[in-house]
Amino acid sequence: MNYRASVLVYPKRGVLDTQGKAVQATLIRLGHGTLEEVRVGRYLQLLLEAPSEAAAREEGDRMCRELLVNDLIEEYSLQVEPA
Amino acid sequence: MNYRASVLVYPKRGVLDTQGKAVQATLIRLGHGTLEEVRVGRYLQLLLEAPSEAAAREEGDRMCRELLVNDLIEEYSLQVEPA
Repeated sequence: MNYRASVLVYPKRGVLDTQGKAVQATLIRLGHGTLEEVRVGRYLQLLLEAPSEAAAREEGDRMCRELLVNDLIEEYSLQVEPA
Repeated sequence: MNYRASVLVYPKRGVLDTQGKAVQATLIRLGHGTLEEVRVGRYLQLLLEAPSEAAAREEGDRMCRELLVNDLIEEYSLQVEPA
């Protein structure tokens, strides 16, 4: 069966989010004065074949650990649903 | 009141997702043979002050139109919740 795994990868709390700071400064210059914080990360959508939702989640986690996430400075969340 | 706006920005259907193709090829080389498609986009989390959820959504949409999204090749989804 096909499953869709949605991965959000973002900087760990305490890690300087330079992209976030840059986007925030630009948005404030554009007039969005009420903006207090911006965090910028990656969004990945994976379409994969798996025997069960649990198997799809386990494979998604493995992909994150092996390639998609630098766990020194990033954390991630993973949602899996039938495609 | 503070609101958290979560923005997902990803390539429009039909636009070549070169990052997605590169990530897919690497994951398949790492042994994830059941992977059928990868789409790569940006995830932004905005913390902003607003009088209501509707006002926070309207400001989030404006930020997307003004800076965060290139609507020629990208589309986005926006979720707003109290922070």
